[in-house]
Amino acid sequence: MSIAHALSGEPIDVTPYDARLGEQRSAALFKSEQLEVIRLVLSAGKSMPMHKVSGEITIQCIEGELDVQVDGNSTRLLAGQLMFLLGSVPHSVTAIANASALVTLVLNQ
Amino acid sequence: MSIAHALSGEPIDVTPYDARLGEQRSAALFKSEQLEVIRLVLSAGKSMPMHKVSGEITIQCIEGELDVQVDGNSTRLLAGQLMFLLGSVPHSVTAIANASALVTLVLNQ
Repeated sequence: MSIAHALSGEPIDVTPYDARLGEQRSAALFKSEQLEVIRLVLSAGKSMPMHKVSGEITIQCIEGELDVQVDGNSTRLLAGQLMFLLGSVPHSVTAIANASALVTLVLNQ
Repeated sequence: MSIAHALSGEPIDVTPYDARLGEQRSAALFKSEQLEVIRLVLSAGKSMPMHKVSGEITIQCIEGELDVQVDGNSTRLLAGQLMFLLGSVPHSVTAIANASALVTLVLNQ
């Protein structure tokens, strides 16, 4: 995954990929000192396996449908819904339908 | 502005308010240890005056159109565009059209 560093103050397009979704891959939108924002792309049935990060995160479903597994609980995240997770919480994410999402991570400081 | 504390792992609706936009007010969606996410609502012509926060932030325009002023530069932020700003950068935000936005702030730690 190559990391493009957007400049502070520069607009970044985060609209749905729609018909172009199938051609997209996950990519970092920017990484700064405190924050990293990733545009996650997952095809239906694919998963980001169980993992954890030390900082707090938000996951915002831009299109499609995700299932987020935390502590044995499964929560659907539809387009236009946002979830935040405390730091160090093991979680996995599975696409129920082809999906893209914004993942915002607070980096270790 | 009352602060509703969403629980970690709970879906939060961030779809456009559309026809209901005129009835909405700015509100915090959640505030945790490292992150605060605010749904900012600004009527056309209204501004959030010049200010700065110590942590890095992102501003994601959900609907309408914003103008973000930083260092004497003016940048339009359309629905579906996201901007990040380094910490301690003075900025102001003016609605060009009735708008709502997600503002994500890294809190002091």
